[in-house]
Amino acid sequence: MLSEAGMKRALQQYLDGFNQGDAEAIISLFADDARIEDPVGGGKIVAGNAAITAFYTRAVEVVERLDLDTPIRGSRGRSAAMAFTIRLKSDAEASQQGTVIRVIDVMTFNESGKIIDMKAFHGFSDVSR
Amino acid sequence: MLSEAGMKRALQQYLDGFNQGDAEAIISLFADDARIEDPVGGGKIVAGNAAITAFYTRAVEVVERLDLDTPIRGSRGRSAAMAFTIRLKSDAEASQQGTVIRVIDVMTFNESGKIIDMKAFHGFSDVSR
Repeated sequence: MLSEAGMKRALQQYLDGFNQGDAEAIISLFADDARIEDPVGGGKIVAGNAAITAFYTRAVEVVERLDLDTPIRGSRGRSAAMAFTIRLKSDAEASQQGTVIRVIDVMTFNESGKIIDMKAFHGFSDVSR
Repeated sequence: MLSEAGMKRALQQYLDGFNQGDAEAIISLFADDARIEDPVGGGKIVAGNAAITAFYTRAVEVVERLDLDTPIRGSRGRSAAMAFTIRLKSDAEASQQGTVIRVIDVMTFNESGKIIDMKAFHGFSDVSR
């Protein structure tokens, strides 16, 4: 059953998955029919288990770490949100060296506690090198 | 015209409006047909200019201040988001004395740069006294 605490735990597990380099742990948080918009307005939707698996397998490879900027927020509904900072690996592609991206993610859950929708809010001005 | 910088400026003006006790400045950021869900999942939608005016007139009366927790995030679309902490006035209703609420707001804009949708993510566990 879905709870505010359960949603916050899932968002923490999402961060932990990145910081432990564990793509499977991240992917297991998502429902099979989940949709990801990252970044919001970027014109691309990642939908379904195969696409989500490819997305996070690649993401874990390039991310150095994710740091939460302020405590995770819940809601009285099926969504929770968090503000965090991504640091990309310095041994990733040259264009990404030292890149820092400030993000707010909003995750929406189904009744089973799996994420069905993730929206990542970050624009060009949220990226620094 | 809508821009990432313009959206971030509007969110900062929203915070400033509260911190200056200026409900009109806040209300002027919204389109006449805007909708507010605060909190998300709370079961109430504040819609339209009259309802929004009443909502923020009251909110400014009970809020002591809003403090941004980490820089405002933009997007590549029509939305921006921010994590902040609300402190309610200690001379407000007794039940609200010293109340602190941690929130993430997501605001969506129309092409004229007015807010058409605001969602405030905070749950029971984001309130402390």
